[in-house]
Amino acid sequence: MTLPDRSWLDGLGPVEGLEIVPWDLHATPARADEIEVVVPPYLDSAVDLSHLAALPLLSVVQLLTAGYESVAPHVPDGIRLCNAAGVHDASTAELALALTLASLRGIPEFVVAQQDSTWLPIREWPALADRKVLVVGYGNVGRAIVERLLPFEVDVAVVASRSRDGDDLVEIVHGIDELPQLLPAADVVILIVPLTASTTGLADAAFLAAMPDGSLLVNVARGKVVDTDALLAETRSGRLRAALDVTDPEPLPADHPLWQTPGVLVSPHVGGASSAFLPRARRLVRAQLEAYAAGSPLANVVLPR
Amino acid sequence: MTLPDRSWLDGLGPVEGLEIVPWDLHATPARADEIEVVVPPYLDSAVDLSHLAALPLLSVVQLLTAGYESVAPHVPDGIRLCNAAGVHDASTAELALALTLASLRGIPEFVVAQQDSTWLPIREWPALADRKVLVVGYGNVGRAIVERLLPFEVDVAVVASRSRDGDDLVEIVHGIDELPQLLPAADVVILIVPLTASTTGLADAAFLAAMPDGSLLVNVARGKVVDTDALLAETRSGRLRAALDVTDPEPLPADHPLWQTPGVLVSPHVGGASSAFLPRARRLVRAQLEAYAAGSPLANVVLPR
Repeated sequence: MTLPDRSWLDGLGPVEGLEIVPWDLHATPARADEIEVVVPPYLDSAVDLSHLAALPLLSVVQLLTAGYESVAPHVPDGIRLCNAAGVHDASTAELALALTLASLRGIPEFVVAQQDSTWLPIREWPALADRKVLVVGYGNVGRAIVERLLPFEVDVAVVASRSRDGDDLVEIVHGIDELPQLLPAADVVILIVPLTASTTGLADAAFLAAMPDGSLLVNVARGKVVDTDALLAETRSGRLRAALDVTDPEPLPADHPLWQTPGVLVSPHVGGASSAFLPRARRLVRAQLEAYAAGSPLANVVLPR
Repeated sequence: MTLPDRSWLDGLGPVEGLEIVPWDLHATPARADEIEVVVPPYLDSAVDLSHLAALPLLSVVQLLTAGYESVAPHVPDGIRLCNAAGVHDASTAELALALTLASLRGIPEFVVAQQDSTWLPIREWPALADRKVLVVGYGNVGRAIVERLLPFEVDVAVVASRSRDGDDLVEIVHGIDELPQLLPAADVVILIVPLTASTTGLADAAFLAAMPDGSLLVNVARGKVVDTDALLAETRSGRLRAALDVTDPEPLPADHPLWQTPGVLVSPHVGGASSAFLPRARRLVRAQLEAYAAGSPLANVVLPR
């Protein structure tokens, strides 16, 4: 089986019953006719997935990303494709809290004042405590966000595609059809839905209009979940605030008006780009290789369906 | 009894058995000979505490601050002085998390880039997840910080003035004499000790030298807990990072080199200055007044000792 490079081999260590070699998928590998499991490199634009078709014994492709749509067409029929759902949960949830807390408590204003060596006069900043927070999207990352929110003395509500019973964190999971009733009560709305046909443009003019004056929209999902023009109108008027790790278009071009809109904080899509990634990716890959070597079922199998 | 102003009266509502009137302590009050309980205004430099001596029936002074040292000399002998320990816990703990997360995940860098309408290239930022966090000071705010840290998948250790058994949050409370062993393992050190003779200059050159390369010092205690010159040396060299809500001197003068030291984030002493204050202060005052009216023991009595 193959891992992206030497540092991956060193980090993972040996797995009993498997021979592990490095392969970056830039060219045809040595011993192509022996490879059963492939872990392609993470965020490497030189990867050529067509090489997968040249591996007669290929059985499993284990990705290091949660998204797999762009890879699926290159995976030969019948081969198992596993994604890396879960490895970004901690990192993305943490960034959602960082953006929320920074935006509410005035960190961007302090950074700007610091550039001018200016100690701002005391004023009351909004706290996260006592806020009603609506988390839109309740998969793994949504749950990780709620876990981190709860000790902050907040009132948390969550929304998924369909309403269902609650769990150990929330009493009930609301359905997305309940948004018109939920949004007017929310001080903070955190978006963490997958991008699908039904979530594209979810935060449109009507969604934003339903949010209360002075409330904060946090997007750690995908840029296209928000209607940028509608958000621009609501933030330029000063009615809403926003903290965005993802934008549409992305990257945000230098002449885009969002950059200089007061009350808008933009981070450059760094939800998953943290030191939390590698140890979690390693743990997943090790568990999957051990399962493969033992002939046990693999986790995160997304193909074949 | 008296509350600072009309908005306090409206916010608190009536308390059975007590007549409540507004008094800002700027001048001698009406009906001075009937006043038994006084709640002085919060952060009002026009308050003249010498007026307390003119109240023959005075029994209790309830402060809205945790600190009481400056008030104590003005409280007549035998009168009970109660502080507001606890009302800032949520707000200050929240800011400690905001500063920690912002500093680690690059929010100051994103704010600066945003001013130039620049989307920074992707790089790996340090996550809070997997960090060893040392919380120095384990009173109410220290506990509130730990409660908020725990869901972030961190390894938390706490230090108090003396070592003792743990509680529901930590297995053990280390003594301050163990710092030399604890600091070299800490990725993040959060200071939340009271300012006393023994904590003044606690984070001196030796303390900072014991922190690992690249680690982060967060100060939400008091400015004088840190030796500013020593911190300046360790941050200007790029060896340590810092996020400071309090400084020495404070406010930080415009020509102070800390302002423009890379890796240093300064907020203008806003730990308690949030919307979390008023509801918690109201709850404390109401509970105290109800206890007073019922003849029950008061909480937070700091004088007489």
